[in-house]
Amino acid sequence: MTTLKNDLFLKALKGETVPRPPVWMMRQAGRYLPQFRKLRDKYDFFTRVQTPELACEITLQPIDILGVDAAILFSDILVIPQAMGMKVLMEEGKGPVLPDGISSSRDVANLAIDNIEEELDYVLKAIALTKKALNGRVPLIGFAGAPFTILCYMIEGKGSKTFDKAKEFCFANPQLAHQLLKKITTATITYLKAQVAAGVDCVQVFDSWSGLLSPDDFSQFSLRYLKEISYALSPLCPVILFPKGSWYALEELSKTRAAAIGIDWCITAKMARAQVDKNITMQGNFDPAKLLCDPNDIEKEVKKMIDAFGVQRYIANLGHGILPHVPVENAKAFVDAVKNYKA
Amino acid sequence: MTTLKNDLFLKALKGETVPRPPVWMMRQAGRYLPQFRKLRDKYDFFTRVQTPELACEITLQPIDILGVDAAILFSDILVIPQAMGMKVLMEEGKGPVLPDGISSSRDVANLAIDNIEEELDYVLKAIALTKKALNGRVPLIGFAGAPFTILCYMIEGKGSKTFDKAKEFCFANPQLAHQLLKKITTATITYLKAQVAAGVDCVQVFDSWSGLLSPDDFSQFSLRYLKEISYALSPLCPVILFPKGSWYALEELSKTRAAAIGIDWCITAKMARAQVDKNITMQGNFDPAKLLCDPNDIEKEVKKMIDAFGVQRYIANLGHGILPHVPVENAKAFVDAVKNYKA
Repeated sequence: MTTLKNDLFLKALKGETVPRPPVWMMRQAGRYLPQFRKLRDKYDFFTRVQTPELACEITLQPIDILGVDAAILFSDILVIPQAMGMKVLMEEGKGPVLPDGISSSRDVANLAIDNIEEELDYVLKAIALTKKALNGRVPLIGFAGAPFTILCYMIEGKGSKTFDKAKEFCFANPQLAHQLLKKITTATITYLKAQVAAGVDCVQVFDSWSGLLSPDDFSQFSLRYLKEISYALSPLCPVILFPKGSWYALEELSKTRAAAIGIDWCITAKMARAQVDKNITMQGNFDPAKLLCDPNDIEKEVKKMIDAFGVQRYIANLGHGILPHVPVENAKAFVDAVKNYKA
Repeated sequence: MTTLKNDLFLKALKGETVPRPPVWMMRQAGRYLPQFRKLRDKYDFFTRVQTPELACEITLQPIDILGVDAAILFSDILVIPQAMGMKVLMEEGKGPVLPDGISSSRDVANLAIDNIEEELDYVLKAIALTKKALNGRVPLIGFAGAPFTILCYMIEGKGSKTFDKAKEFCFANPQLAHQLLKKITTATITYLKAQVAAGVDCVQVFDSWSGLLSPDDFSQFSLRYLKEISYALSPLCPVILFPKGSWYALEELSKTRAAAIGIDWCITAKMARAQVDKNITMQGNFDPAKLLCDPNDIEKEVKKMIDAFGVQRYIANLGHGILPHVPVENAKAFVDAVKNYKA
């Protein structure tokens, strides 16, 4: 095993003392980078995701260009429904479509969970390749979608502002919803364990749509499955849970054995820290739209953010994925501001 | 002046003791009603909004069909940009388009605020007509969009999940953004005062997109203008503020002289009540997607909600507009469950 040259990110996850917070950005391997757009013009979405050499190249781009403190594997949360047997289409710039959305108990029963590792072998190969290419420069983050968010796409069949169809399914057929959530959870645990075995240093679980649920419904349809995943993975590597918008559950989330919790920008550091256990790291919470400001303003806002969270037990990040039209120099200003932070 | 036969809603706003909470639903005059769809098939959006007889007929439909405790005028928040001189197009089922979005200080300077009452005379006529037709059965609610939400549409030029363009405008040109927000605020105060003079018993201000702002940015770009509106209107009638998703500002919102604050479903009654002044009424917070459940389940969920909020200082409502595909009997089950509530 290669020793990590920059282990700031893992130290922050473990709660060890660090000289400054580590920094990375959600969707850092993405459309705002001209180098990414070049590959996108040549290869379609699934070619990029399923070709280990391409996934590896894309994963490395922000490490070389921005100098972030962690790499996150280029992939997609919808590889899980695909591995479970669903058709997933991805039209560039249009978002995903799952033409055969789940609607019956028969559909749920038909979902396969026995060949997850085989089906997603290309991800594991991409991880091995990326770890080798990184050569210990920074840690590599693996990830998966949270069961509730995956259910949202499986039922709705596409992206949505409110995922009403998915929520109706949960509210009207809670038993069937739980059957589905359990199957997704099992597949996800298998998948994340395989990612760890292939070499990732940490896993993040993205619950992009959990914030559409009331506190009660979050407990019922999301939290228990996040907990199951965290319990299964935390003995193997640090786990980051990011249930976007579910600020109301921070206290409970801090009791899931997760090493860190991600938060969006719609909460202050003080409000967040007041709810969580002292033994947990917070990750976030820069408004992605603020990266469209002047670099000087970005620097000021980053300083304000770190002043509020403090240097320890904190990972600087955005509160959601970086926007496609952010200038690279602004992304760099964000990263540099964290690196040059002085209290 | 006709005496109100049912003044439960106004009593709850004033904090007077009531035997049960009043109930109405956001977008209650809307697409889930077959009677509304019939008119929609015959008249386009702006014909419905700008013809006082049609607006009146639509406003009354849920009073007759569901028996709610308040009427809300059928109109749209985008009549304000229109009255200020912007073109607003509305394609059925597609959402609004403002083809000449604001982008420069010249655009802001060109917005007119001197003829708001004249431009929106059709609204004032619809109010007078509706008050007469209601004949004191229930109070009539007037409304407007909050300045930040109106700015969102003016800049973005259409609906959006994240309104990044509007937020970029605020963050990159705060001075110009404040000029624009001030103009919208002035126009909105004129408009709401005219609504009161025409007969509405209460006004609600919808900040549908304020939840996209961080707590700091909400203070800067939304709260101060909500406060200005509330200060100007509260001597004339009770004011309800509904900054959707801005749970983090409930304490400050309770100090704006508003009679009530609306909340969505992503917060518990306990969390909300803990933040606000005792002298303020809460309105909400049923998840609109829950109206797609079985009527028996709706009844149970309504009971849980009122148990949590208590009967006093509370107005039962949804946490957002009613969804177009809710069966009318489910909407009725919601209203009846509030009316039949027993502690």
